[in-house]
Amino acid sequence: MLLARLRDYLPTGGVEAIPPDLSGSRPPLGAWASLSMSCESRRRYRVILCDALLQPESALLRDAIGERNCLLVTTPTVARLYGPAIRAMMKKTNAIGSLILPACEETKSMNLVETVCDQAISQGLDRRGILIGFGGGVCLDVVTLSASLIRRGIGHLRIPTTLIGQIDAGIGLKGAVNFRGKKSFIGCFHPPEQVLIDPGFLRSLNARFISSGIAEAIKMGLARDPLLFDLVETAAPKLVASGFAEPRAHGREILRMSIGAMLEELRRNPYEDKGYERVVDFGHTFSPALEATQSFNIHHGEAVAVDMALSAAIARCLGLIHRDLFDRIVVLLRAASLPVFAPKLNVELCLEALKESGRHRGGSINLVVPAGIGRTVFLKRAEDVPRSILSEALRILRRHALGDS
Amino acid sequence: MLLARLRDYLPTGGVEAIPPDLSGSRPPLGAWASLSMSCESRRRYRVILCDALLQPESALLRDAIGERNCLLVTTPTVARLYGPAIRAMMKKTNAIGSLILPACEETKSMNLVETVCDQAISQGLDRRGILIGFGGGVCLDVVTLSASLIRRGIGHLRIPTTLIGQIDAGIGLKGAVNFRGKKSFIGCFHPPEQVLIDPGFLRSLNARFISSGIAEAIKMGLARDPLLFDLVETAAPKLVASGFAEPRAHGREILRMSIGAMLEELRRNPYEDKGYERVVDFGHTFSPALEATQSFNIHHGEAVAVDMALSAAIARCLGLIHRDLFDRIVVLLRAASLPVFAPKLNVELCLEALKESGRHRGGSINLVVPAGIGRTVFLKRAEDVPRSILSEALRILRRHALGDS
Repeated sequence: MLLARLRDYLPTGGVEAIPPDLSGSRPPLGAWASLSMSCESRRRYRVILCDALLQPESALLRDAIGERNCLLVTTPTVARLYGPAIRAMMKKTNAIGSLILPACEETKSMNLVETVCDQAISQGLDRRGILIGFGGGVCLDVVTLSASLIRRGIGHLRIPTTLIGQIDAGIGLKGAVNFRGKKSFIGCFHPPEQVLIDPGFLRSLNARFISSGIAEAIKMGLARDPLLFDLVETAAPKLVASGFAEPRAHGREILRMSIGAMLEELRRNPYEDKGYERVVDFGHTFSPALEATQSFNIHHGEAVAVDMALSAAIARCLGLIHRDLFDRIVVLLRAASLPVFAPKLNVELCLEALKESGRHRGGSINLVVPAGIGRTVFLKRAEDVPRSILSEALRILRRHALGDS
Repeated sequence: MLLARLRDYLPTGGVEAIPPDLSGSRPPLGAWASLSMSCESRRRYRVILCDALLQPESALLRDAIGERNCLLVTTPTVARLYGPAIRAMMKKTNAIGSLILPACEETKSMNLVETVCDQAISQGLDRRGILIGFGGGVCLDVVTLSASLIRRGIGHLRIPTTLIGQIDAGIGLKGAVNFRGKKSFIGCFHPPEQVLIDPGFLRSLNARFISSGIAEAIKMGLARDPLLFDLVETAAPKLVASGFAEPRAHGREILRMSIGAMLEELRRNPYEDKGYERVVDFGHTFSPALEATQSFNIHHGEAVAVDMALSAAIARCLGLIHRDLFDRIVVLLRAASLPVFAPKLNVELCLEALKESGRHRGGSINLVVPAGIGRTVFLKRAEDVPRSILSEALRILRRHALGDS
């Protein structure tokens, strides 16, 4: 009697429901009901470019935190350089503590993430509380992944202090750590609430870190923005020598254009669930293998530079670009004090990297190679990059690396 | 000269950009540019209710996997009961391996997640590959969290084998593990691709597990569905005694109605980012503390039952429900062989649980208490549940537990 009324009560609104089998007879093999669920998430965040973020007059960080409690995560270097200014700033907020993490490529693991989670518990960070990542790419990766995991996701702010963090690693949705020797094998998509970019932090970076960041700017320029490429070509040596401070207008414009281009690319496919062709993967196919093989003795941007040089050499060998353009790319990389070759780079390593790339990009290798300045093409299949082309491309690069083009 | 053209090239389409400061004069304190990023994700999945999932004739699982490679994660109990059938089924797919995890509340930690990630690496699971969780709630939690982390998120299927998994833990977006004694402190939102529900798996469960699952059905009935509540009232003792097999129509309808109600509730706020008032938190405020205090020697559903009884007693003491309804709730819980009290339950534990709840629910305790059958109210502030009311409610429960109402 009760059961007779049940049909009236079946869920409506998006839920499909096949009438129940209430007859007591043997049900058919297969489904007897199917209910569907849809879930949507919309997030929005801002990347704010500013000066003097740590000056007492600046309200940007305070405003971003509001009344919530927060845990600041930073690195020994940042703490040494800006400790007093950070402490003065955090005093004006509901900071519940700060944590100095030995964050570098070698230590970028779940251990660091668990250290942050530990602190979040012991300091009583609540669900509305936020993490603030203040440091380089690795620090921000760890904070992003920690924020995504704590209480199934809390908010976080990012203050990247390296150039690579400011134009690449720190402005997207992703966070990841290395696992069992696999670079960034464990990670998440977790948009920040806000990213605060102050080029003043770059002044204390040594030249090698500036070069590394410029590699990502060259990537965006070469992949999609000829003006950005030109700008880097004009200013790279001076920017490297000056902690990105001079020429000032060039530096700021490179920052803004790189960030704008990166966000536009990310916006097409923010969760990477709409296909595996990503222009921003340019320079990121061979570089993970190179970084792993060199035990992370190579900076990320340097590995990206070598990868771009190799991708350009492959494009040249395949007749996709002229030798002049290839030379221009290599000259720019070297003008930015970036390497275009690495001793451990060989055909076997490249083939393994392409295989891993296939595993990561849904079966297609999707190697991004330049087809002009501001234009790229995707080489999809392993057959598109045969061993003979790889050998030839490596030979060209090796010659360039010896200063002999 | 180059810089003069830059404005024409600023990103458009959703990207705000303040004109750059190219004058060389000292920029104002605060932001000199702001770029905004929006990211949207839409997912859809189905919960399919079926029979004979492991029979050779059933194509449901094979169809869900398709051509992709997959790693099956299960528990010793499931492997013992269904090992040969599972192996026969997986032979027809691109399974790359299976993993038997000692998954229980005590072991539900990042260690298990890392074990799954390890296997995913060593077996060469690619980014299109999927995990299949085949087991109880803990197994599915670990698989969900692992899937969300591997390569920043791969797909997964869930086959819950417990009643609590089939109507609650296994059908939502969430996965979590315990951390440093905090229940489910580390977790994620990661929708499955599909959930396959076969009530046949429940036949091998012992009565205590069936009771635990019925606690969640009572929760949904009491919180929002009087018909579901009636149905459980009619059938609970027989369902507990028969491995949920008899009365058959009642069992199936309870399954479907509980799942439908749960999905409707989840759909309102799937990522829990639209406020902290969740009807499905009914029974889940005091229970985490109880589970932690009893070192997980209490089943989740049992802790939920005690929590619901306590919440109902609080509602009675506050005059929100009549004594008759309170008695009816307690009688139903006991008819389903569920506890309504626990020795470790005392005022201090409850107050600590409410405090933790406040930390987790954005500052409000949001205790869900019944206000009728199919109706709840939220007690938002700690002052709404004073110590005196808690004492009185606990006194009433203790008396009921002694069989004396």
